[in-house]
Amino acid sequence: MKKMIIKELLGDYKKILHHDITIQGWVRAFRSNRFIALNDGSTIHNLQIVVDFDKLDESVIKNIKTASSLKITGEVVESQGAGQSIEILAKKIQILGDHFTEDMEKTVLQPKKHSLEVLREQAHLRFRTNLFGSVFRVRSAVSFAIHEFFHKNHFFYINTPIITGADAEGAGEMFGVTAFDLNQIPRDENGEVDYSEDFFGKKTNLTVSGQLEAEAAAMGLGRVYTFGPTFRAENSNTTRHLAEFWMVEPEVAFNNLENNIDLAEDFLKYIIAYVLKNCKDDLEFLDKRFAEEQKSKPEKDRAKEGLIEKLENVIRKRFKRVSYTEAIEILMNSKENKKGKFKFPVEAWGADLQSEHERYLVEKHFDAPVVLFDYPKEIKAFYMRLNDDQKTVAAMDVLFPGIGEIIGGSQREERLSVLQDKMKEMNVDEHELWWYLDTRKFGSVPHAGFGLGLERLVLFVTGMTNIRDVIPFPRTPNSAEF
Amino acid sequence: MKKMIIKELLGDYKKILHHDITIQGWVRAFRSNRFIALNDGSTIHNLQIVVDFDKLDESVIKNIKTASSLKITGEVVESQGAGQSIEILAKKIQILGDHFTEDMEKTVLQPKKHSLEVLREQAHLRFRTNLFGSVFRVRSAVSFAIHEFFHKNHFFYINTPIITGADAEGAGEMFGVTAFDLNQIPRDENGEVDYSEDFFGKKTNLTVSGQLEAEAAAMGLGRVYTFGPTFRAENSNTTRHLAEFWMVEPEVAFNNLENNIDLAEDFLKYIIAYVLKNCKDDLEFLDKRFAEEQKSKPEKDRAKEGLIEKLENVIRKRFKRVSYTEAIEILMNSKENKKGKFKFPVEAWGADLQSEHERYLVEKHFDAPVVLFDYPKEIKAFYMRLNDDQKTVAAMDVLFPGIGEIIGGSQREERLSVLQDKMKEMNVDEHELWWYLDTRKFGSVPHAGFGLGLERLVLFVTGMTNIRDVIPFPRTPNSAEF
Repeated sequence: MKKMIIKELLGDYKKILHHDITIQGWVRAFRSNRFIALNDGSTIHNLQIVVDFDKLDESVIKNIKTASSLKITGEVVESQGAGQSIEILAKKIQILGDHFTEDMEKTVLQPKKHSLEVLREQAHLRFRTNLFGSVFRVRSAVSFAIHEFFHKNHFFYINTPIITGADAEGAGEMFGVTAFDLNQIPRDENGEVDYSEDFFGKKTNLTVSGQLEAEAAAMGLGRVYTFGPTFRAENSNTTRHLAEFWMVEPEVAFNNLENNIDLAEDFLKYIIAYVLKNCKDDLEFLDKRFAEEQKSKPEKDRAKEGLIEKLENVIRKRFKRVSYTEAIEILMNSKENKKGKFKFPVEAWGADLQSEHERYLVEKHFDAPVVLFDYPKEIKAFYMRLNDDQKTVAAMDVLFPGIGEIIGGSQREERLSVLQDKMKEMNVDEHELWWYLDTRKFGSVPHAGFGLGLERLVLFVTGMTNIRDVIPFPRTPNSAEF
Repeated sequence: MKKMIIKELLGDYKKILHHDITIQGWVRAFRSNRFIALNDGSTIHNLQIVVDFDKLDESVIKNIKTASSLKITGEVVESQGAGQSIEILAKKIQILGDHFTEDMEKTVLQPKKHSLEVLREQAHLRFRTNLFGSVFRVRSAVSFAIHEFFHKNHFFYINTPIITGADAEGAGEMFGVTAFDLNQIPRDENGEVDYSEDFFGKKTNLTVSGQLEAEAAAMGLGRVYTFGPTFRAENSNTTRHLAEFWMVEPEVAFNNLENNIDLAEDFLKYIIAYVLKNCKDDLEFLDKRFAEEQKSKPEKDRAKEGLIEKLENVIRKRFKRVSYTEAIEILMNSKENKKGKFKFPVEAWGADLQSEHERYLVEKHFDAPVVLFDYPKEIKAFYMRLNDDQKTVAAMDVLFPGIGEIIGGSQREERLSVLQDKMKEMNVDEHELWWYLDTRKFGSVPHAGFGLGLERLVLFVTGMTNIRDVIPFPRTPNSAEF
């Protein structure tokens, strides 16, 4: 007997019409003691199983409840009902696992908007819902599209270290990693923690970025990218922050800022086009959910576009490329600014942009994704390349509707002496980054790269609003269950 | 002017023959002040650049040294020399970066066997060598093949947590993760560390495996796999151990042990076939290096097969499937055992197998990859499914020539009460794993999965011998540089 998954079966059923097959899954619904909606996770679609009381063991049928797991053998026939191509006439049904209690059924199997929070506490079970099934299938597709894009463009995937002795950009607080028993920490003669006794013989942290190591790799392999977890020990309890999240960081030898922006635009459009093409069913479900959610909002807060429409628009429109200086002028001259509608008024060149400014540019002024570039050097990291004006650096941020910054990157400073000056200015320890400086001493070349937070992109693509709902087991302040 | 990478250029040069192109890379050699071997990391092959003194700036040419980075514009012509299809007649050469000092040249650019250790201390520069270029391109190809295999087979990629409150299998020592300043750790009234004050409000560690979380995901999504970093705080200074390594863990609902073995065999063969097909140039280089290395060994220690031959044999041969019980009999009756040649004599059923026993089975007795299954329950983890004999569990290990265990897996215990009994027996905390038990309470199904250590596989495929040479920035006791 051929074992199949529902996705394969629904995709190409003609060959097995009127054949017997075996199928396994979980009961999503059991109507009229006759129709089982079976799901096996491979697709959002359920397979309809038709039960014939006369032919099957009554004691088994009585015990079939929502969320029971079943193994069914039966004949594939064309469906009588609307909305499905085929169904299975069950000849044999076996209950594999215990079924849900009524309680679980309520919280886990019928997720309403108000219960997403409850489901977060049941992260181990939420994979079983339609909503999270779709979200995590889409997340998987986004991840595959990322690998495929880079693979097609001759990039090499590299793994940069998770445990690190360095603090890449002084970016926020880091988690410490130690093999010490915290009740018995060795101390030196001054009573300070003696890290030389720890596993690595030094103080180590969880990485905040693989960029600096990726730069070293690009200096030999040319085009590389990382795709791995990064960490921030920031006590931010928001819908946008995670203590542990996944980051993608390409780094390309010989690329300048313009090449870098081209790469970012191609990359984002490739992923979104991939998902539109390969996750149709899940996106249609998420699109409906998104529309429903909009209805419950006050009119002024509703999204202008539907979810799928928004995704299609992003790939259709050319991203607007605007220098920081132009953007500041637009913002300073905007009605919003003049009427005092920004929480943070834009007063002069040099100001850091806030989320409200980014959204104004993307959603109101340009009505398209925006790439801002050439930022004041003071508000950007030490490794970004100093422009000839000596005031700005070759940085770029990609801003998306509804979500703000989705990619941040730059051309890197490849000139040793300029880099060293900048490190002094910004108090970055040259001694600790000896190896990074080395990459500028021997065969240094212009190069550029960027970082994409995977969860931000998945939020955008799925239309979900809380970042904790697009990663299987979110890590946030006071929460590391599972 | 079209910018190209060397791999594209060598692959499809006919269309651009006699056109001008721009190419960028690093000088691998500069012969007779006339021929530059240029490499850009995209392939192990260098592109030959022909320099015409009369047409180019002498001061530039004088400064071209090994490892200089260059930007060259010139005409693509068919090559006069042997061993290359095309070369570039340079019309313009620009030096992009400083060149190597003589010292760097010696240590980094001419890696001999004895200098692999030196290169480990220059991990940021070793990407620039032929050897490590090949190793990391192959590692990237292996990683892509893994994603492609699962994608084609309708698996979903999931990210399981890196920071965890749980100790999955009691597998070895774990690294602690904390946001505490170790000089000022909050303590409770008993003087114990007060973890409720730490970032996550509890004691947290770096994960040793994503399996238990992957099982939860498989109960909703059906077929899933993880691919992420895992950690061991074991003080093992060997050629086989890393404190931080990458693991792949598929988990499949409705699979039994036999399905699991089939999956493991298909998976390994897919990856190796992929690399043989897509990394021909790098494998040829590594094959030669491997052969050279064998020559320097005493005859009895030499590998029986060449590197490529070994890989071809693995995909050609059906893996031998042998129960633990059969294996013990074979070992007990072997000449080696009877003559006392094993360091650990095999005396009775129940013994844990040592590396020497695994290698005897694979390399001498069967001369093929071996899958051992149905191990004594006492020597395996709590989550493995108890067989009907009540003595063994549905575990499986895949053993490869030269390397021993490359995959370990099992069918999981899906029966709640049997699982609970086993946890009690083995002192696994039910309270901590409440959510794991939940997955057996609601719609539990038979399922199975395994783990593959990426670096072990890359060692096997590249013929390298030290695991620190197949991960870009190795983490080992007293070593967390970069």
